[in-house]
Amino acid sequence: MITTLPAFEGPVCPVPLNHLDQIVMGHGSGGRMTTDLIRTIFQPHFSNPALNEGNDFASLPVPAFENNSGQLILSIDSHVVKPIFFPGGDIGRLSICGTVNDIAVSGAKPLYITAGFILEEGFQIENLEKIIQSMEEAANEAGVQIVAGDTKVVEKGGCDQVFITTTGVGWLNSGVRIGGQYARPGDVVIVSGPVGDHGIAILAARGELGLDTEVKSDTAPLNNLIDAILEAAPHTHVLRDPTRGGLATTLNEIAGQSKVSILLEEDSIPINPNTRSACEILGFDPLYIANEGKVIVITPEKEAEAALTAMRQNMYGKDAAIIGRVIISNPGKVMVKTSIGGTRLLDMLAGEMLPRIC
Amino acid sequence: MITTLPAFEGPVCPVPLNHLDQIVMGHGSGGRMTTDLIRTIFQPHFSNPALNEGNDFASLPVPAFENNSGQLILSIDSHVVKPIFFPGGDIGRLSICGTVNDIAVSGAKPLYITAGFILEEGFQIENLEKIIQSMEEAANEAGVQIVAGDTKVVEKGGCDQVFITTTGVGWLNSGVRIGGQYARPGDVVIVSGPVGDHGIAILAARGELGLDTEVKSDTAPLNNLIDAILEAAPHTHVLRDPTRGGLATTLNEIAGQSKVSILLEEDSIPINPNTRSACEILGFDPLYIANEGKVIVITPEKEAEAALTAMRQNMYGKDAAIIGRVIISNPGKVMVKTSIGGTRLLDMLAGEMLPRIC
Repeated sequence: MITTLPAFEGPVCPVPLNHLDQIVMGHGSGGRMTTDLIRTIFQPHFSNPALNEGNDFASLPVPAFENNSGQLILSIDSHVVKPIFFPGGDIGRLSICGTVNDIAVSGAKPLYITAGFILEEGFQIENLEKIIQSMEEAANEAGVQIVAGDTKVVEKGGCDQVFITTTGVGWLNSGVRIGGQYARPGDVVIVSGPVGDHGIAILAARGELGLDTEVKSDTAPLNNLIDAILEAAPHTHVLRDPTRGGLATTLNEIAGQSKVSILLEEDSIPINPNTRSACEILGFDPLYIANEGKVIVITPEKEAEAALTAMRQNMYGKDAAIIGRVIISNPGKVMVKTSIGGTRLLDMLAGEMLPRIC
Repeated sequence: MITTLPAFEGPVCPVPLNHLDQIVMGHGSGGRMTTDLIRTIFQPHFSNPALNEGNDFASLPVPAFENNSGQLILSIDSHVVKPIFFPGGDIGRLSICGTVNDIAVSGAKPLYITAGFILEEGFQIENLEKIIQSMEEAANEAGVQIVAGDTKVVEKGGCDQVFITTTGVGWLNSGVRIGGQYARPGDVVIVSGPVGDHGIAILAARGELGLDTEVKSDTAPLNNLIDAILEAAPHTHVLRDPTRGGLATTLNEIAGQSKVSILLEEDSIPINPNTRSACEILGFDPLYIANEGKVIVITPEKEAEAALTAMRQNMYGKDAAIIGRVIISNPGKVMVKTSIGGTRLLDMLAGEMLPRIC
């Protein structure tokens, strides 16, 4: 536990990590070396009253609410992305944004994050610090606090550099009903921008593409964008971030939960030219490629234009587009009208397409 | 996310995992194989309304409270214990108990758990199911719900079988003030039973001891024991579970937080004979060995006997003992009066003693 440690007393004076530049097993012992690691690397970036109290738990207020009618929102994601640094982000930024977005798509305000680190012996402390800094920046951008943490170390070869598991805690005011089960025939389907960038950026960063590409991951916290959507379109039925499995798999999940069909217009789906080329060369369908900074919005027709306008005014929604509609026929299925006028079934992703993408 | 999946519809009918008995990369894709894994392995054990809704988040009530004055309690732990099955428990039981205990020592009622799984390609699904079953049993014993989950798969050699990160969420009624910073001179220090069993059981299970021992891990959820303690001794100042670093390191943390000294009576500290022998042979001090089912109680003298009596009536506290007192001299230090009448300093654990103990 980061929070297992004695409160940070006296003047802020970084303790040298015994002049080590790599993680050693002792950093995970729960003893003095763990304390030193946390004081020098974690606390300067994650400092807040709950964390600094030095207990095994964080004690936190919930927002004031009336009639005991709000709800707690929880979400968890483990992050094993490879490589840990990639164009547009790193495992630290990803671990905050992924969890913030899972909370925000419920319509809740993300408040707190807990973070568990599994580190490989020999991992460069300099790289750990970069990751922690990214987490701090993403948390600040999203307006969430990192309130509890834990660090474990496994021997060389026991894991791949660093894994980060984050749980997000949010607060949902009463009366908000957003979820994959609420899509209704007639609703309009909007996506906040071009799809497939994250997956392609990761593959390219691995050097497995066999081609150079300038595609950057879209990793971003979307809670501010979502606030704007809900202000403009308060009767929105579904918000969801199309991560693993991409747009196609996420829409299949929603179609299944709501027992409706979704009909997309292929030509309306925004895809960056570089991502499209990479997909064409590799034989991938960009609709199945993971995103980490996009949100699907399913909203009644009468609020769709307002939602779209609001999204386009936000840096993370400037390329938002209406991409389809919810229909009655073929419940549970997602169909796409192709450019040449045909219609094809867009099934769920079956097996593994891109491993360790997040 | 476990909760990313379409709600579990229709009659409960386990989907065959394509006749696989091992984890493959596709189980972490977020697509159909992930869905199948969750439906067949996770949902039968973790089923509850929040999880079954099939969103990326769990939506949960908080207990009714007055004047907006309760607090949310959060704690996180990553579990990398090796081996994953050991006498007295497994990584599943450990992952629930460790987190339940971190919440309970705040004085809060543990309510919800989120669980992130990192699985190695090739991991036996039969073993995963055993672990899930242990988690279910421990959660039932503690009275907590597992409300959100996530599964990632890394390639063979990318991690060591299975890592589980759990976050616990609890609710603290207003007026409860328990924490490592509240120990006061004159307080009595109690431990709920013999120390060092967990660490020795893990080492023995690795076959690294070079000797046979019957020591079993003490892994247990302590929230019911803690309820009994707080009923008997409502002015208790500190509760803490002495995990990594053992009794000695945990008491050092408390002494540092509260700026007091703690003086122990060596002869009063309960240690199982088998654990003591194993430690003597190996040259370990049992006071530095991890526990996973013990709690340290620091309470005003006038409530100490009541606390002890209440503890001894609980199965997890039947060997509870008063082991020392909080004193003024040497703030931040832990001292122990030895059997032969001397006094020695009990410092914090410096480096790594037993790696991957939890």
